[in-house]
Amino acid sequence: MTSSTAPYLPGRHLLQVPGPTNVPQAVLEAIARPTLDHRGPAFAELALSVINGLQRIFRTSGPVVIFPGSGTGAWEASLVNTLSPGDKVLNPETGQFSTLWGQLATQLGLNVETLPSDWRHGIDVEAVRSRLGSDDEHEIQALLITHNETSTGALSDVSAMRRVLDDLGHPALLFVDAVSSLGSVEYRHDEWGVDVTIAGSQKGLMLPPGMSFNAISQKALDKQSSAKLPRAYWEWKPYLELNKNGFFPYTPSANLMAGLEVAISLLEREGLENVFARHIRHGEATRAAVRAWGLETQCVDEAAYSPVVTAVRMPDGYAEAEFRSVVLSTYGMALGSGLGQVAGKVFRIGHLGDFDDLSLIAALAGVELSLGVADVPHKEGGVSAALAVLAAAH
Amino acid sequence: MTSSTAPYLPGRHLLQVPGPTNVPQAVLEAIARPTLDHRGPAFAELALSVINGLQRIFRTSGPVVIFPGSGTGAWEASLVNTLSPGDKVLNPETGQFSTLWGQLATQLGLNVETLPSDWRHGIDVEAVRSRLGSDDEHEIQALLITHNETSTGALSDVSAMRRVLDDLGHPALLFVDAVSSLGSVEYRHDEWGVDVTIAGSQKGLMLPPGMSFNAISQKALDKQSSAKLPRAYWEWKPYLELNKNGFFPYTPSANLMAGLEVAISLLEREGLENVFARHIRHGEATRAAVRAWGLETQCVDEAAYSPVVTAVRMPDGYAEAEFRSVVLSTYGMALGSGLGQVAGKVFRIGHLGDFDDLSLIAALAGVELSLGVADVPHKEGGVSAALAVLAAAH
Amino acid sequence: MTSSTAPYLPGRHLLQVPGPTNVPQAVLEAIARPTLDHRGPAFAELALSVINGLQRIFRTSGPVVIFPGSGTGAWEASLVNTLSPGDKVLNPETGQFSTLWGQLATQLGLNVETLPSDWRHGIDVEAVRSRLGSDDEHEIQALLITHNETSTGALSDVSAMRRVLDDLGHPALLFVDAVSSLGSVEYRHDEWGVDVTIAGSQKGLMLPPGMSFNAISQKALDKQSSAKLPRAYWEWKPYLELNKNGFFPYTPSANLMAGLEVAISLLEREGLENVFARHIRHGEATRAAVRAWGLETQCVDEAAYSPVVTAVRMPDGYAEAEFRSVVLSTYGMALGSGLGQVAGKVFRIGHLGDFDDLSLIAALAGVELSLGVADVPHKEGGVSAALAVLAAAH
Amino acid sequence: MTSSTAPYLPGRHLLQVPGPTNVPQAVLEAIARPTLDHRGPAFAELALSVINGLQRIFRTSGPVVIFPGSGTGAWEASLVNTLSPGDKVLNPETGQFSTLWGQLATQLGLNVETLPSDWRHGIDVEAVRSRLGSDDEHEIQALLITHNETSTGALSDVSAMRRVLDDLGHPALLFVDAVSSLGSVEYRHDEWGVDVTIAGSQKGLMLPPGMSFNAISQKALDKQSSAKLPRAYWEWKPYLELNKNGFFPYTPSANLMAGLEVAISLLEREGLENVFARHIRHGEATRAAVRAWGLETQCVDEAAYSPVVTAVRMPDGYAEAEFRSVVLSTYGMALGSGLGQVAGKVFRIGHLGDFDDLSLIAALAGVELSLGVADVPHKEGGVSAALAVLAAAH
Repeated sequence: MTSSTAPYLPGRHLLQVPGPTNVPQAVLEAIARPTLDHRGPAFAELALSVINGLQRIFRTSGPVVIFPGSGTGAWEASLVNTLSPGDKVLNPETGQFSTLWGQLATQLGLNVETLPSDWRHGIDVEAVRSRLGSDDEHEIQALLITHNETSTGALSDVSAMRRVLDDLGHPALLFVDAVSSLGSVEYRHDEWGVDVTIAGSQKGLMLPPGMSFNAISQKALDKQSSAKLPRAYWEWKPYLELNKNGFFPYTPSANLMAGLEVAISLLEREGLENVFARHIRHGEATRAAVRAWGLETQCVDEAAYSPVVTAVRMPDGYAEAEFRSVVLSTYGMALGSGLGQVAGKVFRIGHLGDFDDLSLIAALAGVELSLGVADVPHKEGGVSAALAVLAAAH
Repeated sequence: MTSSTAPYLPGRHLLQVPGPTNVPQAVLEAIARPTLDHRGPAFAELALSVINGLQRIFRTSGPVVIFPGSGTGAWEASLVNTLSPGDKVLNPETGQFSTLWGQLATQLGLNVETLPSDWRHGIDVEAVRSRLGSDDEHEIQALLITHNETSTGALSDVSAMRRVLDDLGHPALLFVDAVSSLGSVEYRHDEWGVDVTIAGSQKGLMLPPGMSFNAISQKALDKQSSAKLPRAYWEWKPYLELNKNGFFPYTPSANLMAGLEVAISLLEREGLENVFARHIRHGEATRAAVRAWGLETQCVDEAAYSPVVTAVRMPDGYAEAEFRSVVLSTYGMALGSGLGQVAGKVFRIGHLGDFDDLSLIAALAGVELSLGVADVPHKEGGVSAALAVLAAAH
Repeated sequence: MTSSTAPYLPGRHLLQVPGPTNVPQAVLEAIARPTLDHRGPAFAELALSVINGLQRIFRTSGPVVIFPGSGTGAWEASLVNTLSPGDKVLNPETGQFSTLWGQLATQLGLNVETLPSDWRHGIDVEAVRSRLGSDDEHEIQALLITHNETSTGALSDVSAMRRVLDDLGHPALLFVDAVSSLGSVEYRHDEWGVDVTIAGSQKGLMLPPGMSFNAISQKALDKQSSAKLPRAYWEWKPYLELNKNGFFPYTPSANLMAGLEVAISLLEREGLENVFARHIRHGEATRAAVRAWGLETQCVDEAAYSPVVTAVRMPDGYAEAEFRSVVLSTYGMALGSGLGQVAGKVFRIGHLGDFDDLSLIAALAGVELSLGVADVPHKEGGVSAALAVLAAAH
Repeated sequence: MTSSTAPYLPGRHLLQVPGPTNVPQAVLEAIARPTLDHRGPAFAELALSVINGLQRIFRTSGPVVIFPGSGTGAWEASLVNTLSPGDKVLNPETGQFSTLWGQLATQLGLNVETLPSDWRHGIDVEAVRSRLGSDDEHEIQALLITHNETSTGALSDVSAMRRVLDDLGHPALLFVDAVSSLGSVEYRHDEWGVDVTIAGSQKGLMLPPGMSFNAISQKALDKQSSAKLPRAYWEWKPYLELNKNGFFPYTPSANLMAGLEVAISLLEREGLENVFARHIRHGEATRAAVRAWGLETQCVDEAAYSPVVTAVRMPDGYAEAEFRSVVLSTYGMALGSGLGQVAGKVFRIGHLGDFDDLSLIAALAGVELSLGVADVPHKEGGVSAALAVLAAAH
């Protein structure tokens, strides 16, 4: 426990990593209520309400399975319920999270083919089209798409993937990691013909970490009978059966479920369109600040700028870990670290979840002041530039 | 959300299922604090404190891995990190949870041999000895022991299992499900030579559901290199590496971790010996009530009476679900249902976790009054009998 | 702060003093939300909702003033807004709280005449009639009535006071202390012709202490212009003006107000008639337990038994403070002390506020077990007797 | 209650009125814990700890009385315990709050002489010296000093008042309203020879409103016996007696007391010197922003600039209420209104309590953006100017 004698940093501490995100008070309250009996009628009512609400958020009429576990587990679930050892999957690289997903697929015994990238762009649609177009035998069983690459701040076009598959008549399953986009960026599971969407609780859904999700198409459901990868915890089948009445094959994360019901209602009370517009505005304001500081964003692909996270490259010779440490100790704000290939080279500003214009300015002020404290070469005026974007957006 | 116009049942609602259990206020507070950055220094400090605390609770000096997920996942983890497809495991039946564990092992491709039971006793030590003794080739790779069978209220003797293995010089791994015993019943991972102990957050550890644990012996660690079951999410290896510095391979359940630190401190402030004695006392008082009512406990094995849950058989012709529904609607108390073979036939009174003498009397009063309301044949005096046990214990 | 190393008493700690009472979780949540700007529109909306709700609870169409302060302050407010130095008031004694109210009136410069009592009955209606009947000059300006005497557990008949005044055509104001009755016992400000009702937050209204109330008749309002007692903080006038728009003359207890809105809704969701019936039932069950123990209640007036608190006389030679200390340290339950004349001689069991049948049994079990621990002469069977009352009430 | 269907404004809502202030999470938690029995040992321990802590905050070794009530009540308490009807008190005007205090004194029957001011300066020390110097008969019994005038943002010099009294050998009591300064601005009750300091919970002490305080000198204590103003609720005497053991004459605000213990510990963990420096820095940054906007502060007395609140004059023809309404609806931030003489003419930015550099920037950004939205004539650059002050302060 925090020692009751440790120095106290007053005020509010900003959690500006790109997930977990700041959790609304009403959600924290719901999570802190006494645990419900997960086999009783009140919980069943809650569960049905949450599943229904998630369908509205994923924009699907199909089943949404809620796992106790992280998004990594929901990746695993998408694969083990639909594929067999040795199956080939195509994994267009976008950054650290697409890479980890590919590694997990390999560990499970799949044959992963990666389409390489420079970690500074969204997925190259034409490269995907070309590779799938050459797959005459339809060996590729699934396409693993990372919608928002959290490590670089690049958003890829899921509907374009669908069009490619349809244009080519390729039967591969379309799997989409929407962990850091769902609830913050427009997402349409059914309309985009996604077969399994993977998501987690701790990003746009504004909850603590601990739950993850699979939204599942009929085509993916049909694969269960032929899929040979061993599965138990992550198996959909008992969920699909028991969820009908609001029950679960093993103990669900009952308190997070109570929080999720509230979180969904908050998103809907704000209005999903307003939520999406807010994230786009905050992305623009953040990039305006970065430009004004004379720094560079990791993502250089204008069409792929992420509305939820901006990765900023440190000037050569300056370490991001030390900079983030200054931000944390001086201003009580957590920024995201560089991951994988860009470890040490970028820091990331999360601007997703339960967030607002003034808090964004606070966060950017924390970056600007800390660049000064840490003697990182930069120009002033980032906060002003962001203010101008917010003022214009009004 | 609970409608703000629904009728309000005043007072306190008792959660007397055998898990999830009543969560202490101080734990709920910790869970409701703003989420920590799981890659920052405050979280690392928390994680190291929690891992260290869990070692004291499990009584082990070896690693304890903390998964986001339910106990079912920790079962899976124990198997996939140590075994290979087709490996034989011996699963002495105790009730519904030992059965589910066996089914999960089968699903993962293991060769499960069950030692059958009548669901009214603890594990038959001599039957285990006999079967292992006949395993000349040491085909049996692991023994799956359910310490406290939550469906029947029977506690088995783990140290006896160790002695059997040692007596026979049998090299099988000893896996123990301590999900509903850890933190409530004496448990000694190292001293008893357990190879993997499986536990969960929502029982004696007094947290909401959502985290599960593996405590791991050196012998089990050594199996990782030869174990061929595919594994990714549940793989120990990246945990063992990253946990050294308080970090995790994917996003941990940060808010539950904060609660767990508090829960461990509460257990230690009460004193583990006092905690264990309290559960034993509550088991005795509950069984005294059951006897006074003229009802029968599901467990008829005196040496195996559970200190944490008492399963009570309904008189013939009376359904437990209807009875529990009366208890819930009339007195706002949740009791555990009958599961598996005893579905419809037993209800279960959980008396574990953050609980006290007076609340136990409240719970037993709820049962006694409801037996009357529901016209279930019984004698009065259960509450009085329990009071006498508590008075004598003082 | 509670030291993080102090021993931990597990489970739930019963607050069975006759106020402050156990506060519902939903009320605690509301109190813990960020403070509202008391001059902003959200607070004004809250305030109007609360004032309106209080009118329903007091059953009045007149103004209800909400003071930051305790019930003692609301006593003072009732007097200073309506009376002048030297005015005579009649104060029928019931116990410690009627005595304190009289002392406060004396301190403020009023001429207090007390009708003495033995602290074991409700107000003697005929004694009041007789005294008022002899007051030919109508010197008596006000009658101070303690509805529920919290120190003895005696409830007096307010409507009878009204009838006496009406029968005699006596113009005295009727002031009623409903601090420990409002929200638990039937109360009708308008119908009973009460001029000022005094109440507080921490009893039947299920809030922490810190707010108190005056419900005011037109006749009392009319007295403001002639009342000469100096007043500032407790003056009604600026409240009456500003409250119309939801504002206050000085900073109100904004967080408690948020809790009060929730508490009123809980009372109404349970249904006031059900709330009153529950308190009557709990009073009966408690007295049944006291009789079974062979102990005596302080109140010996059957018509005046309090539904909210039962004062129990200790056997001669046994000190209540020591007994309560045993209850607190052994079972974590707080009981009320003896006050004033009966200090040392009675302990009090509060059974009001957010309470339920099973928790009452828990509380009575705590008393019964502690009588044993403390070696206080008694018979067993109190809990059983209470159970029988509750069973019969179903 | 907030309707569950009302639109949701995401993120954090800034409470930038000059009290109530933003309450730290740890304080809200403490307030939301189950109410303690105010006559039990745990509460007594809490009360003694809080009284002791308050002595450190007020910097006094004398008694500090804690009232359930607002600061207005603590004004009343200071007067009724020490003065008699008709006593003359000198009240140097500073703004709305000094005016209200004077009115309250008049209502209580005192003879109040006001030293007028233009509401744009701190107290004129020489004017006080001159008036006291001419009071040859020592008719003036007390001096009423408002330390920080919350309506105008002017801080007066309390130690200068002491020196004037000492220089003149004038025996008047020195009463100081430190409601909006204590805990935010340096304050020394004993060293400055203050006789009664009045304070409240909802400003620098970072609590919700509902408690107020009197710190009392020996000289003021000695006045109790001769003071003839009637008093009951606000009487010190029973407090002084009962507080010795941690008890109170009537029910204290138990939950706020629990919060106050935490709040004091947070102030001390930050370090009072750091707290004071932070408020000074935030005052400077705020005034830099106001200057950059081309607006005027209400206080034009450089020596008296308040570290806790800045009142800003609206340009002629622009109404503050409409501007604040834009701020609230557009950016979810509450600003303080103009009060009394400056109603309609100034808005106030509170920068006190649990606050930090980045949140201050957020608040100033909210003002700057809203000046634009509301079409109030101004220059940009206020946020930048504030950032420069914060950067330089590092």
